[in-house]
Amino acid sequence: MPNDPDCVFCKIVAGVIPCAKLLDEEHALAFLDIGPVAPGHALLIPRDHYETMDTMPPDAAAAMFRRLPALVKAVRAVTGCEGVNVLQNNGAIAGQVVPHVHVHVIPREPAGRFSFNWPAGQYEKGQIDSLARAIRERLSQGEMQ
Amino acid sequence: MPNDPDCVFCKIVAGVIPCAKLLDEEHALAFLDIGPVAPGHALLIPRDHYETMDTMPPDAAAAMFRRLPALVKAVRAVTGCEGVNVLQNNGAIAGQVVPHVHVHVIPREPAGRFSFNWPAGQYEKGQIDSLARAIRERLSQGEMQ
Repeated sequence: MPNDPDCVFCKIVAGVIPCAKLLDEEHALAFLDIGPVAPGHALLIPRDHYETMDTMPPDAAAAMFRRLPALVKAVRAVTGCEGVNVLQNNGAIAGQVVPHVHVHVIPREPAGRFSFNWPAGQYEKGQIDSLARAIRERLSQGEMQ
Repeated sequence: MPNDPDCVFCKIVAGVIPCAKLLDEEHALAFLDIGPVAPGHALLIPRDHYETMDTMPPDAAAAMFRRLPALVKAVRAVTGCEGVNVLQNNGAIAGQVVPHVHVHVIPREPAGRFSFNWPAGQYEKGQIDSLARAIRERLSQGEMQ
């Protein structure tokens, strides 16, 4: 039975929908994306249903990401790609289509089609420190909960 | 003393170069990117020097990524952004500038400037299965080492 009966990735975890499987472990599953932005484009997901990264318990994130280095290494070795992007999208605005946390492992080649822009800006004086202080405070409030 | 005396992130870890710090823990450091692609753009890094994800020991990856959910949550709460991209680049071709593993946490807004394309393709018959088999075999070889 899928954890979330409406979730395509929960159905893959449950074996109701097939996949080109790469890893199948207690806390993580990896398989090839069927709509790859490059050959060898893989997905790493938690077996449990979490919609976005900020709702994952720390232990679940650790257990899933523990397998990321080996997956990146294997994809790199087999595809012979020059580099790899690891991308995890949260929210429709960020490009998330399936609302079950998934980590894209994307092989990069000079002739590859996937790309992103990098519109680096800069902060006004003092802005970076006040923003950092607010995020630090929020992080320490989270720890007290 | 920085672990790698030529690495700007090792210098930040060692406190030789200042940063707008968000988290400072045994295995992970987080701070605001000084060239943000969106306000609140944060970086999560391991304290030890690993050039790319595929060279990180599983325990080091787990220890760093364990803090990712809280960091995404805090950035989201403070910036009020609608979504978040988590991006980790390996190799110059993938956009990696500093050769010390770092995870970008990028707030996304309708009016934001950061974006990527998504040139989803498809596999020819049989191609996805042979590719998956090769990656699976490489992963199991890695486990035997």
